[in-house]
Amino acid sequence: METIKVGLLGLGTVGTGVAKMIFDNQEELNKKTGYAIEIIKVAVKNINKKRDIELPQAVFTDNPQEVVENPDVQIVVEVMGGLEDTKDLIIKALQNGKHVVTANKDLLAVSGQELFEVADEQKKDLMYEAAVAGAIPIVRAVKESLAADEITEVMGILNGTTNYILSKMSQEGADFADVLAEAQELGYAEADPTSDVEGYDAARKTAILASIAFSSRVTFDDVSVSGITKISARDISYAKDLGYSIKLLGVAKREDNGQIEVRVHPTFIPNDHPLAAVNGVYNAVFVKGKALGDAMFYGRGAGELPTASAVMGDVVEVIRNIRSGSNGRIGCTCYNEKNIKDVNDVVSKSYIRLLAKDEPGVLAGITRILGEHHVSVESIIQRGGQSSGCDECEQGEAEVVLVTHAVRHQDLKAATDEINSLAKVIQVYNIVRVEEGGN
Amino acid sequence: METIKVGLLGLGTVGTGVAKMIFDNQEELNKKTGYAIEIIKVAVKNINKKRDIELPQAVFTDNPQEVVENPDVQIVVEVMGGLEDTKDLIIKALQNGKHVVTANKDLLAVSGQELFEVADEQKKDLMYEAAVAGAIPIVRAVKESLAADEITEVMGILNGTTNYILSKMSQEGADFADVLAEAQELGYAEADPTSDVEGYDAARKTAILASIAFSSRVTFDDVSVSGITKISARDISYAKDLGYSIKLLGVAKREDNGQIEVRVHPTFIPNDHPLAAVNGVYNAVFVKGKALGDAMFYGRGAGELPTASAVMGDVVEVIRNIRSGSNGRIGCTCYNEKNIKDVNDVVSKSYIRLLAKDEPGVLAGITRILGEHHVSVESIIQRGGQSSGCDECEQGEAEVVLVTHAVRHQDLKAATDEINSLAKVIQVYNIVRVEEGGN
Ligand SMILES: NC(=O)c1ccc[n+]([C@@H]2O[C@H](COP(=O)([O-])OP(=O)(O)OC[C@H]3O[C@@H](n4cnc5c(N)ncnc54)[C@H](OP(=O)(O)O)[C@@H]3O)[C@@H](O)[C@H]2O)c1
Ligand SMILES: NC(=O)c1ccc[n+]([C@@H]2O[C@H](COP(=O)([O-])OP(=O)(O)OC[C@H]3O[C@@H](n4cnc5c(N)ncnc54)[C@H](OP(=O)(O)O)[C@@H]3O)[C@@H](O)[C@H]2O)c1
Repeated sequence: METIKVGLLGLGTVGTGVAKMIFDNQEELNKKTGYAIEIIKVAVKNINKKRDIELPQAVFTDNPQEVVENPDVQIVVEVMGGLEDTKDLIIKALQNGKHVVTANKDLLAVSGQELFEVADEQKKDLMYEAAVAGAIPIVRAVKESLAADEITEVMGILNGTTNYILSKMSQEGADFADVLAEAQELGYAEADPTSDVEGYDAARKTAILASIAFSSRVTFDDVSVSGITKISARDISYAKDLGYSIKLLGVAKREDNGQIEVRVHPTFIPNDHPLAAVNGVYNAVFVKGKALGDAMFYGRGAGELPTASAVMGDVVEVIRNIRSGSNGRIGCTCYNEKNIKDVNDVVSKSYIRLLAKDEPGVLAGITRILGEHHVSVESIIQRGGQSSGCDECEQGEAEVVLVTHAVRHQDLKAATDEINSLAKVIQVYNIVRVEEGGN
Repeated sequence: METIKVGLLGLGTVGTGVAKMIFDNQEELNKKTGYAIEIIKVAVKNINKKRDIELPQAVFTDNPQEVVENPDVQIVVEVMGGLEDTKDLIIKALQNGKHVVTANKDLLAVSGQELFEVADEQKKDLMYEAAVAGAIPIVRAVKESLAADEITEVMGILNGTTNYILSKMSQEGADFADVLAEAQELGYAEADPTSDVEGYDAARKTAILASIAFSSRVTFDDVSVSGITKISARDISYAKDLGYSIKLLGVAKREDNGQIEVRVHPTFIPNDHPLAAVNGVYNAVFVKGKALGDAMFYGRGAGELPTASAVMGDVVEVIRNIRSGSNGRIGCTCYNEKNIKDVNDVVSKSYIRLLAKDEPGVLAGITRILGEHHVSVESIIQRGGQSSGCDECEQGEAEVVLVTHAVRHQDLKAATDEINSLAKVIQVYNIVRVEEGGN
C-alpha cells in the first residue's frame, strides 16, 4: 500500500489528537483512502518535552522550515497557531507543492485571502474545518452541501469558554467575575481570557463563516464586536423573566441587496430557539437558507480529539483528492464584492436596563425620548426599592427594563445617550440585542 | 460557458423544487461550478398536467427511458420514487455514463448495494443526500467530515409525520387517532399513513445511516421496527412526569466487537438530551464518535425546497467532480462484514405500563417475576382508581408504571409475558425503550 507522508507543525493539544487518530484508526483510514498515513516530520518549540504520544525522536525538529521544505511531505497539518511566521510557512508549503490543513482561525480571519490565492494558483488543497466550531463540520456543510442554496443568515455559539460562563451564570445566578475565576481554575478559560470574553475569538470564526456563507471575503476587521464582561446576574435574571436565554452570538446576515451584517455580541434569544438549549462548552451554528429553511449543527467546539476529528476529516479529503488527482477541486468561492453594512444601520430589537430615581415622571421622560428617536417599546418592567426585587436599588431608586421593537442601532444609541443624561436617570447599565425567531 | 445537461426523472414535489433552484440560483451556480446547468429532459407520468414551473413542452416525456438513454444527459436526478423499475433506470443511467443523484430512500435501503457496485464499476457518482433527513447534510457529514473517526452511535428523528404527531400529542395531551386525523387534514400525513406511523420510513433511513456510519451494508430487513400506533396520551403523560420526551427514533450502534444494533421504535429520551427539543416536522440526527464526542444535526426532513436543497448540493458536487475529472472519487465505503445483533440481545432501560387489580400482593408478584428474569427496577409509580389520576382505571383497579435498569430485551419480554398472565394483572399496555445520555 502506498503511503501518504504528513508533516505536523505543532504537537500540542490538537497536534497530539491528530497523531493519536492517525495511529488508532490506521486500518479504517487505509480502507477509506486507499493509503497508509505516516507522520514523517513534526515541528515543536521544545524537542525535549515529554510527549503524550510515541514518535521516533528523529521526526522532531524545532525548525518549522524543515517541515515545509521536506521534499517527502505531501500534507502539512498546521496546528501550532500564530500569525505572520505561520502565514509564511503555509505559503511556502503550498509553493513547495504541499497541501495544507489548518486549524488556525486567527490567521485565516486576517490573511485568508492571501493564503487561498496561493492555494488556488498552486492548485493545492487548503482546508480548515477545525478553525470554526471545532468538531462541527460546518465549513464543509456550507461550502458543499448548501452550495446550491442562498444562505441568508448564520448565527453561532462559537466560543466554548463564554458559553460555559454564561450557562453557569444562568444556572447559578452567579456573577461574571466569580464564574470566570472558577472557569480559569477548571482550565475552561485561559489565564488571559481577553480573546474569549471580549468576543475576539468568536469574531474570527464569524468572519470565516460569513466569508463562506456569502462567498465573499469578510475579515476580522469587518466584524463589530462586544464581549460578555458587562453581562450581570441581573441581566440574566431579567432575560429569564422575559423568556430568553443570553448567549454570545456571532451573527452574519445578508440582505437581498447584498449588504452583509456581521457582528458578535451578547444576545437575548427566545427559549424556544434551538440555540437557547446549547449549554456549557458546546458550540452550535444555526443556518437559514432560502431553500434549506432553518438548520442547526451542534457539537464540541474544542478539545484534543474533537478538534483533531475535524482536522483528520480534512486530511482524508485531501488524500481522496490525491487519489483521484483532483486537489484544489473546489477552490476559493469568494467572487462576491464585499459590502459590509455599517453597524449603526443594523436593525434589531433591544433590551435596556437602567437605574433611575423612583419619582413620578421618570418613565414618561424616558419613553418621550425613545419616541423622539423612533424607538417603540414592546415591554417595560419597573422595580422600585429592595422589597420589590431590585437588589441594586437604594431607597427611592427603581430599576427599569425595556424591550424595544426593532430599531436602528444609531437611533437606539442616540436615545440611550440622551436618557443617560436625564437628571432622574442614575445610569443606563446595559443594552443587549434581542434576536427573534424560535420554533 | 459550458453547459451541464441534466435529466429529471419526476417533476413532483422534489423535482419541482430542483427545477426552481436551478432557475433561481443560476448565476451563483455558474460561479460556484464554472458551468451553466440546463434541464434538457423530464420524465413524468402525465405530460399534460399543469406544472408549477415553466419548461418547454419538448423536454417532457412520459417515457423515463428517454431520460436515461438520452446521449446528452450528463446527470440524472431521480425524484420519481419506486423500486424495481426505478432501480433498472438508475442502473441503465450509470451504464450509459451518467451520474445519478437520487432522493429515493425506499430503493437505497433495499437495493443500495447493487446500485453502488454499478456506480463503482462505472466510476460514476451516485449521490443521495436527500434520501436521509431531507435538508440535513448528514450523509456528507458522515462519509466525509467524520471519515477519520470511529462512529459508535447514530440516533435520529427521521420521520416528520410521526414527530409532528408525537409533538402534538405531547403539547395537547391528545390521543394518537385524533392527532393523526388532524395531520391528515393538514397534509402532514398521507391518506395511507402506514409507512410513517409503523416506522418503515424511519427504518429505511436508519438502514442507510447505519451503512455509512459503520461502513457496512445494512438493509431495511436488518432493522427491527415498531411504530407509534400504540403510544397513548397516558404514556406521554407518564414520560413527562418522569422527565422524558417520547420520540420515534432510528437507533444504530456499533460495539467494539463489531456487532451492530439497528432498530426503530418509540423511545423515552431525557428532556435534557438535544433530541428531546426537536419538535414538529423537524428532523435531527445525533451522532457519537470516539473522537467527535456528541454532535447533532437539525433541520427540515422534507418539503419541496428543503429536499431540493440537498439534491442540488449533490448536483453541485457532481459538477465539481466533472470539472476536476474526479467522479467516483469517494466511492462505496462498505468494506466491513455485516454483523447484526439479534434484537433479543439488545440491552436497554425500559418503561412498562400495565393495569392490575388494586389488591395487596400485586406489586410483590410483579417484582418477583422481574427479579427472576434479572430485570431490576429503577422506579415505580402506582395509581389506583380515578381519584388518584388513573383515567383508565375502574374501581378497584390500579395502573402500575415501572422503569427498569438496563435489561436484555429477551429477559424483559419473558418477564412481561409472565406478568401479563398473572391473575391479578389485567393487561400490560405498553413497553417502551428508554435511552440515556443527556447533556
Ligand atoms: N485547542 C483547541 O481545542 C483548538 C480548537 C480549534 C482550533 N485550535 C487551533 O489549533 C491551533 C493549535 O492549538 P493547540 O491548542 O493545539 O495549541 P498548543 O497546545 O499550544 O500547541 C502548539 C504546538 O505548536 C508548537 N509550537 C508553537 N510555536 C512554535 C514554533 N514557533 N515553532 C515550532 N513549534 C511551535 C508547540 O511546541 P511545544 O509542544 O514544544 O510547546 C506545540 O506543540 C491554534 O491555531 C488554535 O487556535 C485549537
Ligand atoms: N417529498 C419530500 O419531501 C421528499 C423528501 C425526501 C425524499 N423524497 C423522495 O423523493 C422522491 C420523489 O418524491 P416526491 O414527493 O417529489 O414525489 P411526487 O410528488 O409524487 O412526484 C413524483 C414524480 O414522478 C413522476 N412519476 C412517477 N412515476 C412515474 C413513472 N412511472 N414514469 C414517469 N414519471 C413518473 C410523477 O409524474 P406526474 O407529475 O405526472 O404525476 C411526479 O412528477 C421519492 O423517492 C421520495 O421518497 C421526498
